[in-house]
Amino acid sequence: MDQLAEEVLSGKRRSIARAISLVEDRQPGYQALLSTLYPHTGHAYRIGVTGPPGTGKSTLIAQLARSYRENEHRVAIVGVDPSSPYSGGALLGDRIRMRALAGDSGVLIRSMATRGELGGLAWATSEVVQILDAAGYSVILIETVGAGQGDVEIARAVHTTLLVQAPGLGDEIQAIKAGTIEIADIFVVNKSDRAGADQVVRVLQSMLALAETPWIPPICETVALDGTGVAELMAAVASHRAYLALGPGRERERAWSQHELERLIQRELLAQFLDSLPADKLSELVARIAARDLSPYQALEELGLQDTIGS
Amino acid sequence: MDQLAEEVLSGKRRSIARAISLVEDRQPGYQALLSTLYPHTGHAYRIGVTGPPGTGKSTLIAQLARSYRENEHRVAIVGVDPSSPYSGGALLGDRIRMRALAGDSGVLIRSMATRGELGGLAWATSEVVQILDAAGYSVILIETVGAGQGDVEIARAVHTTLLVQAPGLGDEIQAIKAGTIEIADIFVVNKSDRAGADQVVRVLQSMLALAETPWIPPICETVALDGTGVAELMAAVASHRAYLALGPGRERERAWSQHELERLIQRELLAQFLDSLPADKLSELVARIAARDLSPYQALEELGLQDTIGS
Repeated sequence: MDQLAEEVLSGKRRSIARAISLVEDRQPGYQALLSTLYPHTGHAYRIGVTGPPGTGKSTLIAQLARSYRENEHRVAIVGVDPSSPYSGGALLGDRIRMRALAGDSGVLIRSMATRGELGGLAWATSEVVQILDAAGYSVILIETVGAGQGDVEIARAVHTTLLVQAPGLGDEIQAIKAGTIEIADIFVVNKSDRAGADQVVRVLQSMLALAETPWIPPICETVALDGTGVAELMAAVASHRAYLALGPGRERERAWSQHELERLIQRELLAQFLDSLPADKLSELVARIAARDLSPYQALEELGLQDTIGS
Repeated sequence: MDQLAEEVLSGKRRSIARAISLVEDRQPGYQALLSTLYPHTGHAYRIGVTGPPGTGKSTLIAQLARSYRENEHRVAIVGVDPSSPYSGGALLGDRIRMRALAGDSGVLIRSMATRGELGGLAWATSEVVQILDAAGYSVILIETVGAGQGDVEIARAVHTTLLVQAPGLGDEIQAIKAGTIEIADIFVVNKSDRAGADQVVRVLQSMLALAETPWIPPICETVALDGTGVAELMAAVASHRAYLALGPGRERERAWSQHELERLIQRELLAQFLDSLPADKLSELVARIAARDLSPYQALEELGLQDTIGS
């Protein structure tokens, strides 16, 4: 295990892939590995890229990755969207544009497997990002699909969240309402050379006019296909990074740490509690709930766990 | 509380709204209310409607609601998408078309508030649906945004999940990959009068050619704006309902019951455990994690909770 950690720290790609699989599959020793790597984390700048399908997120990410590479960064790309076009370490769709990236040893592309388990994907992502951080990737781009609970989860774990929109996706206003707005640090209107881009920008501006947050998200217009506006977008990310460094970044780090610890506590308490139950107790209660013979909260009481919230 | 439960059971709209707020806000007594209502649940047919923004989900839901009304059903619509166009009990955007629905006492429209909390939205939705079920709504339509973890959660709690697609959203293949496919019981290609609809259907057909599940999701083409194909879609829902009645429905019910009970256990165990800690213990550990002085798994050990998964 210590050898694997050392190899991850030295940036060996095959070992990084092995470490990620270990964590994704929760193989024995994965926590020890994460604990060994943890003191070496905290150096990567984590950027979340979210938004509805069809906005060109992956192309934008490829452009950002290339630009950060030109600035001597090692770059990791993590696809968390279950519908994302990453597969077997490569981006589908954009194959030709991506091939150059995929062949660059300073770029690592990884797709997260979807798990049915509650929040499992967001959690595993947070741990995979720790591995990439420790392995020396100084910029980590994380693509999510936008507007789901998983995105809110992942937004907690990144420094800067880009919310990507594009004209022509139907009812723009519908796609960018309250829930999603809150997680955006920077708005990107991609495909800004297309008809309707100005309207998307205006909708965003009118929404932002009501914002009372200390950081007002800038609106960046890009054409990811040819790279237009990507330099300005990177400048906006740099501004947000500077803003976080004034203090808010520390608070984000604290909130993330608390969240991470609480989810581990919760997972472990459940595992131990279920272990302690008589063999058929859980399935008996489940059968009675399914039969409408017992409500879930009554089952909780039968387990000796009176609900203390709101009782 | 018993009076509120009785009023909910008798279908009083104001009482239903009060019950929902009680549950959403976790006000004192909300579990007792849910337990009182629980034996009266299990009669509603729950339909999840998911898919990316711009596919016309809300218009489709309005059409389905109207058609089920014509078949003497009482219909509830729940918007779970944080970017969904429901507000104050009405659908935005489609105002005129919706006004007739909103004025119908046999239709209830409700938007779920987004909560930052992990999975909170999906959980609260499950409980709100119990209230609507007990209140006698025989069809409950639940709209989610698609492709997020929250949708997978909500798919557990419904009978039939419709995955809505539409032509012209960019890279169709991107929007309908594995993760989302798994939760779909029926595919809907809406806006099927537009260019590109055939191609979306073909992509779906080729994906389904590989399916080895006992239920092969049918593909329904609709034009929600004028109601084309809605009758066929309802027939497909009826077929899926008949399929579930052959046995798989019981297994879904059991799986949902187990999931629901486990999440209550988990929530309660965490609350009790955090209560039992010395005042500053958690914040001290959180600070050390944020400072990279301690890994989350090491903090877990310091709390006497050795991780039993994968160690």
